[in-house]
Amino acid sequence: MGLIVQKFGGSSVADAAKVINVAERVTETYKAGNQVIVVVSAQGDTTDDLITKANEINPDASKREMDVLLSSGEQISIALLAMAIEKIGCPVVSLTGWQAGFNTNAASGNARINNIDTERMQSELDRRNIIVVAGFQGLDKYDNITTLGRGGSDTSAVAIAAAMRADKCEIYTDVDGVYTADPRICKDAKKLDEITYDEMLELASLGANVLHNRSVEMAKKYNVKLEVKSSFERVPGTLVKEVVSVEKMLIRGVTRDNDVARIAVVGLENTPGIAFRVFSQLAQENINVDMILQSVGREGTKDIAFTVTRENEAKTLEVLEGLKDILNYKEVNHRDDLSKVSIVGAGMVNNPGVAAKMFEALFDNDINIHMISTSEIKVSVLIKLENAEKAVKVIHDKFNI
Amino acid sequence: MGLIVQKFGGSSVADAAKVINVAERVTETYKAGNQVIVVVSAQGDTTDDLITKANEINPDASKREMDVLLSSGEQISIALLAMAIEKIGCPVVSLTGWQAGFNTNAASGNARINNIDTERMQSELDRRNIIVVAGFQGLDKYDNITTLGRGGSDTSAVAIAAAMRADKCEIYTDVDGVYTADPRICKDAKKLDEITYDEMLELASLGANVLHNRSVEMAKKYNVKLEVKSSFERVPGTLVKEVVSVEKMLIRGVTRDNDVARIAVVGLENTPGIAFRVFSQLAQENINVDMILQSVGREGTKDIAFTVTRENEAKTLEVLEGLKDILNYKEVNHRDDLSKVSIVGAGMVNNPGVAAKMFEALFDNDINIHMISTSEIKVSVLIKLENAEKAVKVIHDKFNI
Repeated sequence: MGLIVQKFGGSSVADAAKVINVAERVTETYKAGNQVIVVVSAQGDTTDDLITKANEINPDASKREMDVLLSSGEQISIALLAMAIEKIGCPVVSLTGWQAGFNTNAASGNARINNIDTERMQSELDRRNIIVVAGFQGLDKYDNITTLGRGGSDTSAVAIAAAMRADKCEIYTDVDGVYTADPRICKDAKKLDEITYDEMLELASLGANVLHNRSVEMAKKYNVKLEVKSSFERVPGTLVKEVVSVEKMLIRGVTRDNDVARIAVVGLENTPGIAFRVFSQLAQENINVDMILQSVGREGTKDIAFTVTRENEAKTLEVLEGLKDILNYKEVNHRDDLSKVSIVGAGMVNNPGVAAKMFEALFDNDINIHMISTSEIKVSVLIKLENAEKAVKVIHDKFNI
Repeated sequence: MGLIVQKFGGSSVADAAKVINVAERVTETYKAGNQVIVVVSAQGDTTDDLITKANEINPDASKREMDVLLSSGEQISIALLAMAIEKIGCPVVSLTGWQAGFNTNAASGNARINNIDTERMQSELDRRNIIVVAGFQGLDKYDNITTLGRGGSDTSAVAIAAAMRADKCEIYTDVDGVYTADPRICKDAKKLDEITYDEMLELASLGANVLHNRSVEMAKKYNVKLEVKSSFERVPGTLVKEVVSVEKMLIRGVTRDNDVARIAVVGLENTPGIAFRVFSQLAQENINVDMILQSVGREGTKDIAFTVTRENEAKTLEVLEGLKDILNYKEVNHRDDLSKVSIVGAGMVNNPGVAAKMFEALFDNDINIHMISTSEIKVSVLIKLENAEKAVKVIHDKFNI
């Protein structure tokens, strides 16, 4: 008994049969005596189809109008899921992002949730309705429709769970939980029963496509109990929480992220403020920089290398070109034939030699490391794309997860 | 120079090329120095496709959820048209029904506009934006999305023109104006330069699929100057207004409507209140009754015959079945092999013999009349469906339009 928020992604509602399957999962939870709020994404390829339609007309359409267009995808999903729940005979109401009270900032296409006005949702729960909410969308203060960016439905679900003080937020997906490595690469990858927010956060930002990292950040901040579960199989998933009860494993998982472009600015003057100028300009353009490496070059100059997503590669080069006169660098080079492979685990904080063990596994297999970046609970390396799968395997084996 | 409201239907925005065509029409008007508000419907078959999706999941879905589903169709259209206008380089903003301020009653699926809060539209016009508004939709006082029913985009356009005191409301369509008869049936049908609201109203309710009759009623009430024009050809259309300046023609046009089912309740007691009971019950079920004929039958009983749209035929029979004990009728029979053919013209008020002339044309051609209904400016007859095209032709010839 309690208030459960459930989130189903686009592949879980891709066709009529799948929508009906989701309706069954939702109503089971409701019939067990819980209040239920369901968050859904657009069906299957709907978002991509809508983007194609837009590109046929205007490839440089404003983000405001893209948001009006794309948000219709979730509106279709909520109506269809509500209809499926009606058919089962449970009381239900669908709400768009703005009807559910999602107030966001005005960053069209990549908006942040400012707050959720819970009045409407509360009154629907009081009437014993199941609520189906459109993920990924909200309204800015000028009453314009906004979207939260790709993967934003996870964030919508966690935000509702936080605002409504839900007992649990269940994220339903294609896989039945979080694994120590991608099971398609490592056959002996294991499903984790529990994982901490921090570990999940590292995994999420390192290419484990299970949860959107903004949603994990928010879950950590508001202490929302998350569970990653399968949409199709009735098996327990992976719990994401502050402290895990199982014995600490040295590392929690190995991931790879192929969406990496490496940019190097070579021959910068060795004066203060250079890094600031580069990265503040990129931040202004909304480009997220991941790994950063700074080294003193020859003859008193220095080099800065960093990674961005491939989507941002061209824009980054453009920004650097614009800064040429100010930065006075020798050259910029870039490559996108690399992959980032990482290990994550809260256990490594107190265990020296974890990074060394990872490097050893790579060295043993003749895999060259191009860049290294570490945090308290993760180690990432940049290696050649063609070696990525092998690297995940040999590291997984090395740690005997 | 002025404020022009333009409405484009689903076939006018069916694909990317057509959306771009509409954007050109709109921006021409804007560049000529006008303020422009455009109302669009869902693209081509979108509404039907969405209905199919719904039926796959739940053929008895609630009207509330159908409205959430269907209103996404117009939301897609407004975004795409706005993108096409952006590409041409004119300032534009798209607004859904609720963003444009459409407040309706709570009759999901067939809502009526209560009022339009014009603040948002006014502020967008003040910023010199072209406004693209989603037709066919609004918001009830509980913040639920509603739709105005099929053809409702015409009504949306006229309502905006009335609320914003527009100088003109242009309805763009497949045909280039209102004709004296369907040009596909009568080759010598003529395009009318002008027509009165009342005549247009009769034509609209008689199956001339040019304008939705609710929109004409509203245009008449608020004295909105309407023009029916072609989306594709640059030719003058038909003006709809209070008084037409051209010499009065005896009749303005001949139409047919095949969407007719005739129901007869036979052998009712000849007591007061019988008709009231039948029609008030049908009104409660939202069934519009068109032609009504009451006759005293044999042995002090009476018969009532009336027509409804075919969609409502089954429901009507159900209602009558439910009233059997109260009405104590002998039997109900029904047929849907009939068509309604009508002549319309403000000129016939002062011209006796117009109806007789119509009946003569039918008699000369061996076409039997099953039912007759007249108003000050129209005469309708119910004839066999198979004779409908011929009837339109011979009546058109007879009046030498």
